Amino acid sequence: MIITVTLNAALDVTYRVPSLVPRATNRVLETVERPGGKGVNVARVLASLGHRTTVTGFAGGAAGRELRRGLAAVPHADLLTDALVPVAGRTRRTVAVAAEDTGDTTMFNEPGPAVSPAEWAAFQDVYRELLAGPDTAAVALCGSLPPGVPVGAYADLVREARSAGVPVLLDTSGEPLRRGLAARPDLIKPNAEELAGLTGFSEPARAALDARRRGARAVAVSLGAEGMLALPEDGGWRARPPAALRGNPTGAGDSAVAGLLSGLAEGLDWPQRLARAVALSAATVLAPAAGEFDRAAYAELLPKVAVTPFG
Amino acid sequence: MIITVTLNAALDVTYRVPSLVPRATNRVLETVERPGGKGVNVARVLASLGHRTTVTGFAGGAAGRELRRGLAAVPHADLLTDALVPVAGRTRRTVAVAAEDTGDTTMFNEPGPAVSPAEWAAFQDVYRELLAGPDTAAVALCGSLPPGVPVGAYADLVREARSAGVPVLLDTSGEPLRRGLAARPDLIKPNAEELAGLTGFSEPARAALDARRRGARAVAVSLGAEGMLALPEDGGWRARPPAALRGNPTGAGDSAVAGLLSGLAEGLDWPQRLARAVALSAATVLAPAAGEFDRAAYAELLPKVAVTPFG
Repeated sequence: MIITVTLNAALDVTYRVPSLVPRATNRVLETVERPGGKGVNVARVLASLGHRTTVTGFAGGAAGRELRRGLAAVPHADLLTDALVPVAGRTRRTVAVAAEDTGDTTMFNEPGPAVSPAEWAAFQDVYRELLAGPDTAAVALCGSLPPGVPVGAYADLVREARSAGVPVLLDTSGEPLRRGLAARPDLIKPNAEELAGLTGFSEPARAALDARRRGARAVAVSLGAEGMLALPEDGGWRARPPAALRGNPTGAGDSAVAGLLSGLAEGLDWPQRLARAVALSAATVLAPAAGEFDRAAYAELLPKVAVTPFG
Repeated sequence: MIITVTLNAALDVTYRVPSLVPRATNRVLETVERPGGKGVNVARVLASLGHRTTVTGFAGGAAGRELRRGLAAVPHADLLTDALVPVAGRTRRTVAVAAEDTGDTTMFNEPGPAVSPAEWAAFQDVYRELLAGPDTAAVALCGSLPPGVPVGAYADLVREARSAGVPVLLDTSGEPLRRGLAARPDLIKPNAEELAGLTGFSEPARAALDARRRGARAVAVSLGAEGMLALPEDGGWRARPPAALRGNPTGAGDSAVAGLLSGLAEGLDWPQRLARAVALSAATVLAPAAGEFDRAAYAELLPKVAVTPFG
């Protein structure tokens, strides 16, 4: 069983509009809602890959109820366990306004719910119990922190996982990433921009080395259409998709996390993990619905990802 | 007791953003939700004026639940009765993105819920029961029709009210207004643009006369900052606010409906009804929160509205 943690889960809403006209009234042609937040997205992909996955974090308010209802209705929902902790505050919505005329998307991200100290303590209890489960194979800590959760939260959660002997992946940015690193997560998966923000180095290999120095045992950097670069504890690998892909990159990073995490849980070696992460990521870009992956494209791309030693 | 009908009720959401940047991710600083749709807004103002009011129409889905919860929590909620009819579809949200840098608002209006024939029949039963109530003083039919409700719906509802001997105000536009007129509502309250769309005449007095010819027993035209023009069955009146007002016109039309309707229910004469409608409308423009009215401004403006005979 794999655990994904999404402290700032979201209900992702897409509005299809003929055109986005500022200062006017825009008629929405269609509304689509799906459970969201990085760890929730990772869990959906893990379930699609056949991994039993437990989703935890916080959920509250009307959007929280819709999120939980949606989670129970995703494909392979039988493999997903909802262990979200209720909060009095309201789970945020993200609204993506997709304009038909230009093909552009404009995002509106609501603020997350205010989490009380008692709610944060309740989450930590649930988290500890999940880590102690008999078949817990790995945990992913994903995304931003809602108001009220201490900025050092991920450092605490990394420490707990390490004490429990559960491999832990941290996928966040900014100060929560900086603090989390000090607790020595097994793997971080920043993109090049997040890694540059952390280390001050714009060159990904140099920045990844620096992130390892700061505490990460392994670093996998997503390079968008260029694939991924990984610096495990020893050696290094570069993985490239077979061709540049056009499509919607929403969720591609979360699919990469699911690839790395499932590979880790299955005991795959690094080149296999990276090939899976890059193929899943590319198959997500190619899927018509944002955040889903195209299963046929994944099967076709997987053997075509070129993984070469690096450094 | 006054009835307001909102077949396409809404949960009105306001997003405060520093700036609206198309094609970017916009961080929402604050989210405010309130029960909405024209008839719901009218009911809130009626309750603030001390009138017992029953809200009916349709509510469904997460937004419908939030709307009903919000309705129970408005000021003077003790005067409001929730007689909304449940639907399987989802009540729409309207999202108003208010940009702090320019002061502009951009609206996104979701489509309404699809209403089934059985749900429409269930509503008609509730409506008939409410009309037959021992102290029903007036009914307002407000706003657009959700998908599935017949375009001639308002004509049927006007006829039912007239058979029950309950004065009926119709506040809608387009084809539902055109059809509704044939059933001879006691009063319609279009703005100049809606009236021009109905009659083809851009001059409000001429257009109002034409609307009376088409079936309205009385016509009150809102002229924005210029006040109102009313053509009752005999004579005519012009009402002007004391000065041009700056502010947010959202909900000003609904406040005018509440003014006319409460005046009718209290047996006020036309000049008094119009003075109230114009003062409430102006006090709504002046209120800091969209759709609320400023009670002190209302009290101050009421005696200053100039009502003069017309035509």
